[in-house]
Amino acid sequence: MDLHDDQLLPPVGYTASGLACGIYPDGRKDIALIASDRPASAAGMFTTNRVQAAPVHLNREHLIDGKAQAILINSGNANACTGEKGMANARHEAALIADRLSLTPEDVLVNSTGVIGVQLPMDKVETGIAGVLDTLGSGWDDAAEAIMTTDTVPKKASATLTIGGKTVTLAGIAKGSGMIAPNMATMLCYVVTDAAIAAEDLRGALSQTSQRSFNCVTVDGDMSTNDTIILMANGGSETGQISDDNLSDFTDALEQLLINFARKVARDGEGATKLITITVNGAKSEADGRTVGLSVANSSLVKTAVFGRDPNWGRILCAMGYAGIDFDPDRATVSMAGIPIYADGAGLEFDHDAAVEALGAEEIPIDINLAEGDAQIVIYTCDLTYDYVRINAEYTT
Amino acid sequence: MDLHDDQLLPPVGYTASGLACGIYPDGRKDIALIASDRPASAAGMFTTNRVQAAPVHLNREHLIDGKAQAILINSGNANACTGEKGMANARHEAALIADRLSLTPEDVLVNSTGVIGVQLPMDKVETGIAGVLDTLGSGWDDAAEAIMTTDTVPKKASATLTIGGKTVTLAGIAKGSGMIAPNMATMLCYVVTDAAIAAEDLRGALSQTSQRSFNCVTVDGDMSTNDTIILMANGGSETGQISDDNLSDFTDALEQLLINFARKVARDGEGATKLITITVNGAKSEADGRTVGLSVANSSLVKTAVFGRDPNWGRILCAMGYAGIDFDPDRATVSMAGIPIYADGAGLEFDHDAAVEALGAEEIPIDINLAEGDAQIVIYTCDLTYDYVRINAEYTT
Repeated sequence: MDLHDDQLLPPVGYTASGLACGIYPDGRKDIALIASDRPASAAGMFTTNRVQAAPVHLNREHLIDGKAQAILINSGNANACTGEKGMANARHEAALIADRLSLTPEDVLVNSTGVIGVQLPMDKVETGIAGVLDTLGSGWDDAAEAIMTTDTVPKKASATLTIGGKTVTLAGIAKGSGMIAPNMATMLCYVVTDAAIAAEDLRGALSQTSQRSFNCVTVDGDMSTNDTIILMANGGSETGQISDDNLSDFTDALEQLLINFARKVARDGEGATKLITITVNGAKSEADGRTVGLSVANSSLVKTAVFGRDPNWGRILCAMGYAGIDFDPDRATVSMAGIPIYADGAGLEFDHDAAVEALGAEEIPIDINLAEGDAQIVIYTCDLTYDYVRINAEYTT
Repeated sequence: MDLHDDQLLPPVGYTASGLACGIYPDGRKDIALIASDRPASAAGMFTTNRVQAAPVHLNREHLIDGKAQAILINSGNANACTGEKGMANARHEAALIADRLSLTPEDVLVNSTGVIGVQLPMDKVETGIAGVLDTLGSGWDDAAEAIMTTDTVPKKASATLTIGGKTVTLAGIAKGSGMIAPNMATMLCYVVTDAAIAAEDLRGALSQTSQRSFNCVTVDGDMSTNDTIILMANGGSETGQISDDNLSDFTDALEQLLINFARKVARDGEGATKLITITVNGAKSEADGRTVGLSVANSSLVKTAVFGRDPNWGRILCAMGYAGIDFDPDRATVSMAGIPIYADGAGLEFDHDAAVEALGAEEIPIDINLAEGDAQIVIYTCDLTYDYVRINAEYTT
């Protein structure tokens, strides 16, 4: 399996487009379309927030049959908390796409991200839909840009693997910067592949691989109303149906791709200057490890300490302690930026200047061993900075 | 019952002192003592963090008999994650106080707050202990100052009530600014009273009243290793033992006093410019209401929106939604700063300029009705500002 970071290698049979239709007042791109030229299996995972956006409700409905052929996404407006009108607008979008591409509305998935509680400006959206339909082609970069909200960089990656002597390609785009918490990764992510997989297997692969990727990302602990990941497989690679024999190869490739997106989302967290990767070893279970890791990852005190290049292990221990998972603080160990800082129930001697220097890196590993079992998990987050406050005190309205 | 905000009316038989012994390098007061001249019933509540400071372990032990007569507190050092040496230091502090006041060490409670993982500078602490013993008297204001860490103001309040024709006084000091989350209020709070109450009733009153006070405060969601509240009752008012007949009067007064402290701690949250009071009505249970309220209170996005005077109700709905409590978003209502902003599953029309104006106030109410039941609870928190990041990126080391 080869991972192609920051590259979009279009799988057979897919086209994309993206442009500005005026939802953002400043002329940024804000609408995107991805389409397959042939029927495709499809699976989705969605926010578990009790408050769910209209397109999330619609996509659940449209994925019941395990098929989809087009994905529309707009940024600048979440179409969440918009009542029946919001639902009608989402259905109307699907109908417009279906009409032009000769699909049924159930084959079209609709996605929105941005401000909550404002109705979609349907005149602009309709113009945008006509535009993205007219320009469908190799516009993957435009699509990756058009789904950004407070993201500072477009997020794209691909993976290739060989199945039955033929190349299978997976390619994806994602967005996510604030309102990021599991489950699930609180972002939008669309991965399309030319593998041929039954919808049931596609669902299984997505559910399994999200456990160690999207469900391990947090920026601010706020789970969005719109989180969505969609996976489509159209069989264009002509490898024949992926079966039990090679499903794990496909699943591994998908997991690597999704972890790549998880890291990208954490690193581009609102205002972030650093990616923090928290590895929890020695947990009784993966779930226990995730709980402890997320507790540390969501601690504002840990995140500000990393921003301030402060090797303040006490805050890490504290956040481990209130996670609600049993462990013995006298047996746990912690290192930060590669420097062992805590063992045997107390802080270790370390060179403070060297630690401050190490904390200047772009990626800060925090390694925890709970000494309770064999499970391991990695959590992805970022530091908490002045810019997080600035961005979120100035956003919307 | 009369609440005396920001006043310390010393109950009969108690003295206090506070001074600087050099734990803080800048000469700030950092050690305090409160003592009763006669035996007192005592009760305590402590952090539920798995990682607990040495003095927390010691105080649990010393309160088994339901009695205490002196409380030592230092700031500038938490004596947490300090292993056996930290435990020995805490015991030594208790022994020094006991020796001078002719008590048993079990009658002395020891408390520390500040940086985690650094051993107490015992030479300075011993000098400090001699000093606070020498100056015991009406030094309540000094004591309130000496327990501050990143607090910007000392926190004190009293309550008086009449029981059996005689005045009973409750007086307290508290600290808490960062690393504040339930349970419990993640702060230090010491309340002394001249009521006469059996230790068992005192424990019951503390447990009951903390539910709607300390367990409803959050600044940053970080539960400390040192959270402690101590309640002492020495009978100096000579009202006779408080019994079932008048226990509820006492409990009410205690609750008002503790709620006053809860508000003070939230308002003085690190970097805070505003107190946010989140009232959840219509919950199925108080516990459900607390979960929803704390979810909103801990949302960095809600807190930055309040800081930015942004009536962004979508973020409130979103945080309600991921609290994990069942409710129907179409029946819930929300108002912010007194302005109804959400009902019937969608945002309400409101005057945006008036809302921004209203959000300029020092106290911002957020009123939520879940329309699911009759329970009500109030949660206290503060906004998230540049200064929170500054304080915590620059603290410690």
